[in-house]
Amino acid sequence: MAVGEASFDFYPVPGVRLAAVAAGIRKSFEGSHESKAHDLVLLEFAENSTTVGVFTKNLFAAAPVQIGKAHLKQRDARYFLINSGNANAATGEEGNQDALRCCEAMAEVSGVSYAEILPFSTGVIGERLPTEKIIRSLSELFGGLDPSKWLLAAKGIMTTDTRPKIASRRFNVCGTTVTITGIAKGAGMVQPNMATMLAYITSDVICTKDLLQDILVRAVNCSFNRITVDSDTSTNDSCMLTATGKTLVDLGDPAAQELFLLELNSLMQELAQGIIRDAEGATKFVTINVEGAPNRQVCLDVAYAIANSPLMKTAIFAGDANWGRIVMAIGKADIDIDVSRVDVYLGDVCLMRGGAKASNYREVDGANVMAEEEIVIRVNLNSGDFSDTVWTSDLSHEYVKINAEYRT
Amino acid sequence: MAVGEASFDFYPVPGVRLAAVAAGIRKSFEGSHESKAHDLVLLEFAENSTTVGVFTKNLFAAAPVQIGKAHLKQRDARYFLINSGNANAATGEEGNQDALRCCEAMAEVSGVSYAEILPFSTGVIGERLPTEKIIRSLSELFGGLDPSKWLLAAKGIMTTDTRPKIASRRFNVCGTTVTITGIAKGAGMVQPNMATMLAYITSDVICTKDLLQDILVRAVNCSFNRITVDSDTSTNDSCMLTATGKTLVDLGDPAAQELFLLELNSLMQELAQGIIRDAEGATKFVTINVEGAPNRQVCLDVAYAIANSPLMKTAIFAGDANWGRIVMAIGKADIDIDVSRVDVYLGDVCLMRGGAKASNYREVDGANVMAEEEIVIRVNLNSGDFSDTVWTSDLSHEYVKINAEYRT
Repeated sequence: MAVGEASFDFYPVPGVRLAAVAAGIRKSFEGSHESKAHDLVLLEFAENSTTVGVFTKNLFAAAPVQIGKAHLKQRDARYFLINSGNANAATGEEGNQDALRCCEAMAEVSGVSYAEILPFSTGVIGERLPTEKIIRSLSELFGGLDPSKWLLAAKGIMTTDTRPKIASRRFNVCGTTVTITGIAKGAGMVQPNMATMLAYITSDVICTKDLLQDILVRAVNCSFNRITVDSDTSTNDSCMLTATGKTLVDLGDPAAQELFLLELNSLMQELAQGIIRDAEGATKFVTINVEGAPNRQVCLDVAYAIANSPLMKTAIFAGDANWGRIVMAIGKADIDIDVSRVDVYLGDVCLMRGGAKASNYREVDGANVMAEEEIVIRVNLNSGDFSDTVWTSDLSHEYVKINAEYRT
Repeated sequence: MAVGEASFDFYPVPGVRLAAVAAGIRKSFEGSHESKAHDLVLLEFAENSTTVGVFTKNLFAAAPVQIGKAHLKQRDARYFLINSGNANAATGEEGNQDALRCCEAMAEVSGVSYAEILPFSTGVIGERLPTEKIIRSLSELFGGLDPSKWLLAAKGIMTTDTRPKIASRRFNVCGTTVTITGIAKGAGMVQPNMATMLAYITSDVICTKDLLQDILVRAVNCSFNRITVDSDTSTNDSCMLTATGKTLVDLGDPAAQELFLLELNSLMQELAQGIIRDAEGATKFVTINVEGAPNRQVCLDVAYAIANSPLMKTAIFAGDANWGRIVMAIGKADIDIDVSRVDVYLGDVCLMRGGAKASNYREVDGANVMAEEEIVIRVNLNSGDFSDTVWTSDLSHEYVKINAEYRT
């Protein structure tokens, strides 16, 4: 039910190897995708790689998020051990011990320190992690490491996703080739507050930890922090960026950094939009542009008020140009603007001008835009110079069905 | 599809007469309820009645809301002229003129000043009000005024409601009988921010305007301002309270006021809960109690985070005791609490104690609670003395269907 085509092409990244196995963590393997049996994934990074991350702000941040953040402070990461099917969230001290036990077992198999292993989990909240299933699969997992297994890894981290999300860039910096490749998962419980469910982005550039963190935060703020499926923020959101340093390109050089940022932003937006295109039950891909705002927060308040309105989302599902619901959603945002200056566009069609229905608006024009699979809603507040963009999906019967049946 | 039985019994209120006609404002009359043809309602109050109101905080407050607030400042209201089928919202200056024109015509028919008429509208946003249809129905409407037509009036203000909401109390104050009777409408676009869609409450007590306003605000804050269907705030929310002064009971007397407040709160909660029981597509009635909070805002932030979570609402629809989603919702609230103190109950069943799954929790116990039509979710933050309650409904296939097809 995903919106639009997806590309699964990618470039391997020097210094990165991957593996995935079926450890039997998921309760059922009857997913629509034959590769859904894979539920345990390993990413390996060359020695001296630099890894940074941003993590969920949900108060009930899952055990692996807490352990991972602690490990990242102590050592540079050599391995990401990722399971789907179980979130290891709201599991208390036992959950921490479970995550730690898996790291220790992985350390033994791979011959590194446990603090060089970052654990990640995604799936059902509140159930104990099946550590035995994980630990007994680690040798097979480690033995399968290969630089080309990106697509298998992308499939292995999926939960309600119907297709893997992978994006890749190869470009030239002063005669040297640089690669960025990333994977992500997420389809519901998506209104990231720092990052989305799980995203792993790697490159072969050289970069200090502080600079890499700064670059990641900036890129997250115009990609994963600009999407919503259902206004719900996961307990397990993590977005990681690793630089293996296998090229001679150093991001400390301003020209290299600028080029890298352009490519990274584009790649991360592709992954973030990939999550929305594959959102639970999505039949539409919706871009919401808010411009003419007095500051950035007003842009986001208005954009998310529209993007998260169940009434707006059902109208979009129905292809109904019910522009009154856009107006209602703007109006419920907790902001202070002059409504008599507000213009609203659906695609290129002006629905509202100066706070009232545009005199030349015809229902058929709005309906034509709404019939498309990809829809742009543009709000001009005419009250300042700030603009921003949020991407979202519609609210369909399928969304209710998927989430009513999630644990059955 | 409403949850539970509703009572349609009521006591007429001395000093109040009502009427309803079919003016042809609604596009279609194929509602499930035979009385859905009625779409124009008149409430008449005796001379020297006192009327107060609270109104939506949506920035795009509808034309009738703006006109009504202005009239209320000038004169005491003698008539409420209410139409369903068209919200007269986001209609700009033309919308104001349309509302005013209806008031002037009603003033002519009834022989009072136009400022003694308050207009109310509910229905589709962004369409011009069909003033001609309204104006030509006013004589018939006025001629039909009768003290007993409460149920007809309650039906006449319905939109997607499947049944009318009416509540009534008769009680004794120092030997004198006092009556309160009210009607309300609302089923979707319900997260009132001051009041819900439309509610009209009347009594025969004597009261000054300032005191009556104070009483109404207090009662709204524990009734209509504690419900949500879909987190969407209507442009037309209005809640009115009128005292006709036909008894000898004066609310300036503290004992009388205390008794009156008890009965009014109970009546307004019944109406507010009636809206949730009849919420669009509702199959469950959900009470969310948050206690042990450091202040009231934290209670409401947590309660609404749960009540408005699409993932929580679909789990409730499915009868799935997916308590991880409760945890996720609490965690996404923008509050500062110690999560290791949080207890969560589903009915009497403890799901979470001290921030992790309760050791003796059994899935079957949670499932038994979730199978009921009425569900109580209780969160104890163990971090203070404040508590509050919010009522909500589930998110069903029917909700999507109703709102995808609303204008077709």
